[in-house]
Amino acid sequence: MKEQAILSQLDASARRGVRPERAQAALADVPSLPETLAALEAELTRATDDAEAKLQAAARHLVSAGGKRIRPMVTLLSCGACGGEMRAAVPYAVAAELTHSATLLHDDVIDDGPVRRGQPASRVIWGNAVSVLSGDWLLTRALEVVSAEAGRSAALPSLLATMRRLVEGEVLQLSLRGSFAASEKDYLDVVIGKTASLFGWAASAGAWAAGRNGPLPSALARFGEGIGIAFQLVDDALDYAADPALLGKRLGTDLLEGKATLPLIRACEAEPRLRDRLAALVEGREQGESVAADVIAVVKRVGGVEDARALAREHTRTALAALEEIPDGVHRRALREAADQLTERAF
Amino acid sequence: MKEQAILSQLDASARRGVRPERAQAALADVPSLPETLAALEAELTRATDDAEAKLQAAARHLVSAGGKRIRPMVTLLSCGACGGEMRAAVPYAVAAELTHSATLLHDDVIDDGPVRRGQPASRVIWGNAVSVLSGDWLLTRALEVVSAEAGRSAALPSLLATMRRLVEGEVLQLSLRGSFAASEKDYLDVVIGKTASLFGWAASAGAWAAGRNGPLPSALARFGEGIGIAFQLVDDALDYAADPALLGKRLGTDLLEGKATLPLIRACEAEPRLRDRLAALVEGREQGESVAADVIAVVKRVGGVEDARALAREHTRTALAALEEIPDGVHRRALREAADQLTERAF
Repeated sequence: MKEQAILSQLDASARRGVRPERAQAALADVPSLPETLAALEAELTRATDDAEAKLQAAARHLVSAGGKRIRPMVTLLSCGACGGEMRAAVPYAVAAELTHSATLLHDDVIDDGPVRRGQPASRVIWGNAVSVLSGDWLLTRALEVVSAEAGRSAALPSLLATMRRLVEGEVLQLSLRGSFAASEKDYLDVVIGKTASLFGWAASAGAWAAGRNGPLPSALARFGEGIGIAFQLVDDALDYAADPALLGKRLGTDLLEGKATLPLIRACEAEPRLRDRLAALVEGREQGESVAADVIAVVKRVGGVEDARALAREHTRTALAALEEIPDGVHRRALREAADQLTERAF
Repeated sequence: MKEQAILSQLDASARRGVRPERAQAALADVPSLPETLAALEAELTRATDDAEAKLQAAARHLVSAGGKRIRPMVTLLSCGACGGEMRAAVPYAVAAELTHSATLLHDDVIDDGPVRRGQPASRVIWGNAVSVLSGDWLLTRALEVVSAEAGRSAALPSLLATMRRLVEGEVLQLSLRGSFAASEKDYLDVVIGKTASLFGWAASAGAWAAGRNGPLPSALARFGEGIGIAFQLVDDALDYAADPALLGKRLGTDLLEGKATLPLIRACEAEPRLRDRLAALVEGREQGESVAADVIAVVKRVGGVEDARALAREHTRTALAALEEIPDGVHRRALREAADQLTERAF
């Protein structure tokens, strides 16, 4: 059932001129990638080996519920592109994924969301207390992994700054929540903080793992930030357009949580009356389903999803320009194809 | 009113042979302590200067609601005792207090507690989301402060390990909550994790700030852990014995939250029937006030509070033995008197 839905989406992508098989082929050209990914999975599990039983269960529930491993993949390929052995970047790749998982655990508490990655959210199963503490534990473990590796590189202070930016992005999102008067700039500030900053770190960490300093980590940081913005723009757009079976949650979830993303901002600009309906929803005077259907119809009509994809493509182009500063080769080609695929994905 | 209550408690302490004025006098002998404490307060405020408005408000509400500044004081005096300028330890002292504040913010979410330091808990004023994010922000900032200072000392990896131990202590406490079958060893494991580990770091950070490595930070870690255990034992005992006006919250709060501390463990050992009443309380079949009155009466009868103080004194003695490895002088004397005072305090 789910496979069928994926296949039909792939067909649809192909009709739009997107060829995910190119990304697959580019990845297949990278030597020793499968072994390195297997090592990554083993290390991700090992990172929580000594966690208390409930923390471990909460962390592993999330980590094994099928994260796409995009951030660690960026770290590994960036390391290879800088001439390093990808195996050397596994600890940083682990740190990127643990940091991401920690933010998801805390997000579940913040959003009161019932579902995560198509599974019940951790806080539903274990409660707020375990979700908060598991998140704290994973943040600390991520930093410990980097601290053990980093020597005198910028990796550790940079990860600390990144964690602060992640939090600041979440706070900004929270402060905008429910106002429905957020501007596109507000929204992009949220995206840069809560998503792009960690993509940027993940990419430059690959350069540090390869023993590089100076222009390479800095170019990769710009590459990572660019694809991070694109990734989040598409992710948020899919909340208005994807096949729910693929997305793992219902459409319009962001809207019901009061999150103003680009499609919603465009819809409200086109039809300001939507803001009143959304305000009524927040105040409990309107039903979610009815408002969501109305908003989704306006989003479709004004092309909000296509706008988001177009903006994502712009940021991908900026990212790919930064990537030109990295030596060419199989790793760089894989990063480029993966970046394109992230922007065009249907789920 | 509050001052009167404090004076009457001080009288009572004096009758028990405790002389808080000795601690005051020892602190007054430490050169440049008032200026250093003023610098600490300024840096504590400055640490959240660039935080988003709500985060800043939540953090400052807590920090200025009158923390006792015990951990930073331990850091400053430890630095002086190791021959350093206390001013050099201010960043580490700030990190200790920020870390402590971060754990309080997350604790408020975990405990669902309404009151903290006699004021409404942050989560009551700003909600769970801001409390989680402010805690994350403060943890990150504490690490950044240490990262900027630490050079190649053990301060940063040690603070990371400490943060993990803090979380592990909280998790253990959570897993024991409501069972009322916790042993004294379980309880001490909680105390060592959630409190003593940070006291240990705060003390050894003073040695690192003074440029010392080797036996001095290690002796101070043992000193800090010992007084941390004593501090928490007394803190928990006061929940059954203090003057509520001084404590800033009602008696029996821990018990109502299902936390098994030493007085409760002793009371349950003496009268196992209490476990049934407590279980009934957790299940909502009994009223809190009535169960609390019963438990407090048994705690008094079996001397649970005095037992906790006696055990605290043992740990203080161990701490003071470790302190003998530090050069004698005004700073060491102040640490010794402060340790005694922590154990004997009435609030």
